[in-house]
Amino acid sequence: MTDTFVIVGGDAAGMAAASKARREDSDLEIVVFEKGEWVSYGACGLPYYVKGEIQSLEALVSVTPEEFREERDIDLRTGHEVVAIDPDDRTVTAVRDGDEVVQSYDHLLLATGAESIVPPIDGVDLEGVYTLGSMSDGKELREYVARARDSEDLQQADRGPACRYLEDCTGPVGVVGGGYIGIEMAEALAANGFEVHLFQRSDRVLTGFSEATSEAVADHLRDREVVVHLGSEVRELADDGDGTVEAVVTAADRVPVEAALIGTGVRPRTGLAEDAGIELGPTGAIAADAYRETNVPDVYAAGDCAEATHVVTGESTYVPLALTANRHGRAVGQTVTGTPTEGGGVAGTAAVKAFDVEAARTGILDRDEAREAGFDPVSETITAKSRAGYYPDGGDVTVTLTADRDSGRVLGASLVSEYGEGAVHRSHAVVGALEASATVFELENYDLAYAPPFNTTWDPVLVAAKVLGGELR
Amino acid sequence: MTDTFVIVGGDAAGMAAASKARREDSDLEIVVFEKGEWVSYGACGLPYYVKGEIQSLEALVSVTPEEFREERDIDLRTGHEVVAIDPDDRTVTAVRDGDEVVQSYDHLLLATGAESIVPPIDGVDLEGVYTLGSMSDGKELREYVARARDSEDLQQADRGPACRYLEDCTGPVGVVGGGYIGIEMAEALAANGFEVHLFQRSDRVLTGFSEATSEAVADHLRDREVVVHLGSEVRELADDGDGTVEAVVTAADRVPVEAALIGTGVRPRTGLAEDAGIELGPTGAIAADAYRETNVPDVYAAGDCAEATHVVTGESTYVPLALTANRHGRAVGQTVTGTPTEGGGVAGTAAVKAFDVEAARTGILDRDEAREAGFDPVSETITAKSRAGYYPDGGDVTVTLTADRDSGRVLGASLVSEYGEGAVHRSHAVVGALEASATVFELENYDLAYAPPFNTTWDPVLVAAKVLGGELR
Repeated sequence: MTDTFVIVGGDAAGMAAASKARREDSDLEIVVFEKGEWVSYGACGLPYYVKGEIQSLEALVSVTPEEFREERDIDLRTGHEVVAIDPDDRTVTAVRDGDEVVQSYDHLLLATGAESIVPPIDGVDLEGVYTLGSMSDGKELREYVARARDSEDLQQADRGPACRYLEDCTGPVGVVGGGYIGIEMAEALAANGFEVHLFQRSDRVLTGFSEATSEAVADHLRDREVVVHLGSEVRELADDGDGTVEAVVTAADRVPVEAALIGTGVRPRTGLAEDAGIELGPTGAIAADAYRETNVPDVYAAGDCAEATHVVTGESTYVPLALTANRHGRAVGQTVTGTPTEGGGVAGTAAVKAFDVEAARTGILDRDEAREAGFDPVSETITAKSRAGYYPDGGDVTVTLTADRDSGRVLGASLVSEYGEGAVHRSHAVVGALEASATVFELENYDLAYAPPFNTTWDPVLVAAKVLGGELR
Repeated sequence: MTDTFVIVGGDAAGMAAASKARREDSDLEIVVFEKGEWVSYGACGLPYYVKGEIQSLEALVSVTPEEFREERDIDLRTGHEVVAIDPDDRTVTAVRDGDEVVQSYDHLLLATGAESIVPPIDGVDLEGVYTLGSMSDGKELREYVARARDSEDLQQADRGPACRYLEDCTGPVGVVGGGYIGIEMAEALAANGFEVHLFQRSDRVLTGFSEATSEAVADHLRDREVVVHLGSEVRELADDGDGTVEAVVTAADRVPVEAALIGTGVRPRTGLAEDAGIELGPTGAIAADAYRETNVPDVYAAGDCAEATHVVTGESTYVPLALTANRHGRAVGQTVTGTPTEGGGVAGTAAVKAFDVEAARTGILDRDEAREAGFDPVSETITAKSRAGYYPDGGDVTVTLTADRDSGRVLGASLVSEYGEGAVHRSHAVVGALEASATVFELENYDLAYAPPFNTTWDPVLVAAKVLGGELR
């Protein structure tokens, strides 16, 4: 009899698992339950959709439901919410329009994803308050942008260089959160002529990156007329009396806004797993082994609902990002079809573009986090040219590199440059070093590609390794 | 008494050693003998100087002789040719204007560099035949370009898209050799309005890269109106009767030219070492251990005159490139001042820009070379998008990845993309894998940075690893 592989959640991890399983086994029965109507979509593209660089939500979909059903022979059931798992009976119960379906499984993958964290403050439910966790969130926000622009009859070409000083500037709007979603949305909204106020609780944006990167990005945001409020925890979103947001309130300020976007991170959707007795790990996400199997045999977890193992610390970590979801989902698809495959660890690598600046981070940069993992972190920050000094154009690349004092082991890096000058792709070298547990002395000797249009003879990553190595020697 | 560190050759390796030694030891006596007048110059920048993107030769000099002498307290003796080494007496003999100087040393570094290989054919000494090994070569070629352009009264803006069909096209000129120097010079000359004929003995350009890269670059050269003659060994440079080149002659063709550039590689300058009983390795370059010490105690060799150890094969190899020269020179400077420092291996990593295309290669790609080193090479070539499919602009990245069938170990890669779309910096990931002797399965799990403006969720390097891993599994 044919095995049945049931998947809960039809985004990156779920559909990567389904597709891989199908490629490996043409007989396997594959059933995917997806609560919404969209599957396999690039949520990372939503800010660019809101910005207007991407014309339709459909463009974010890499494979359509019809293609999954017809070309890949996957029993994809959209509009089905799984409400219970019975690991003893090996069944899941799904609901659609009030009707229950009970589906048995041989292998089960939980790919329930994450949901936006909404801070516990007054006003988050007001009209004009948005999040950006789902396709429908993106649609709503894009519609708001289009309405606001129409009502102001504002063309992008009319925007002055200092929008907030102009009479016909759209907005203002508030963005709550200075992580990568907040920053990408600040760009998306400012590019549409909005006066944007970015509120960040911490004293710097992109707290997961180095301070040098945070400063470079914040400076660039300010250059582009985004008002960056640091150390500004939002206390309340104020009601205009008619149920619509009219201001963002912090301890120090009351900033009038016409709309607010909340981008304060996500948390794993774990309720279903918890109810079924599936263990969560120390991070609060679903715990899974190297093969992504949970404490319950034949039940796997992958993507934004699950933990992963950090390649530097060897400890559990929660880094909900697209590549991990894809990779872990794919590994599960391979494992359940007979080739046990490890999903690999995560290095906490992330990239962001903010207007004309790009930045990446990888590994452990936070001193406390490094110390907790038993390291004695030492960091150096250098700035070097993105191309040979004599070569036309180019700019600066600023690299912060962190290593363990005793062992010299590379712990992490944060890089920032103009967009197109390679901070993000250069981080690939550091990821290679992290994956190999290489020392800064080894990294210093990496034979990286060099030619004048691409770097100085020592790529900025190598310059950072030289300087940090010099300190540790 | 103070030690004396003598260096023969004042370019990358020599001056990196001198500078590092000075930083580590302010008392050391440091003497550098340089045959010419230029030191520490970026020879890799010469094509861009000839092209006209760099306005002066001086711009290629990172540190001037005066700065070395005055700011770094280095006894730099330009115009001094070292003619003999006596390892027993620990002296070198240098000549300047016929006068001999004998200098004793405690540590000696040979950094004599490489010289252009000129094929043993008739006509290489004719007027109008150039090489590009030195600053003076670059100067001569730039002067030729300027003269030719003046005489034709050709402005770059006047150039039609198909120069060779225009009456007022400058040239034609022949470029002999389809390696990176030949290709960079084809760009430099074509950009100045010359009709360029590129002659390549092999059936593809950039033979050290993958076939896919070679084809992409050759296609792009043709798009830019460079006439690419493949499988065209040059038999003769024909004399116009007045001692000036008038044609490039191959077995199949006789192509009229007004000038010819020979870019057929370099060979190490080893005469001085050989005369002193210093051993050469199997590649014909000076042999040195991990610390760059030769068979003669306290005599080191670094840069384009010396071999290095290949990180993949562990065997001696000869890859004369700028980063290795800098790194090995620097390591020697550190070693002779009391901190024994390994120079690190080489992966044969190289990068090239050809008009609007960029390419990189690293590791072992040649099947025969891989087999000789005991591997069973398997390759896959994939093409993926440089940015998320829905993200504006971007282009294709083509990656060839080679691994050993049995072990899965990554052996090498070749990448090509539009300039700015990251083929070169993405190769950093593969270099990391090579330096760590990682398998393609490990590379597939590298947690590389992802965001829509920079790659697809799986960076093209990861796509290549997935596909190749699938074949090996």
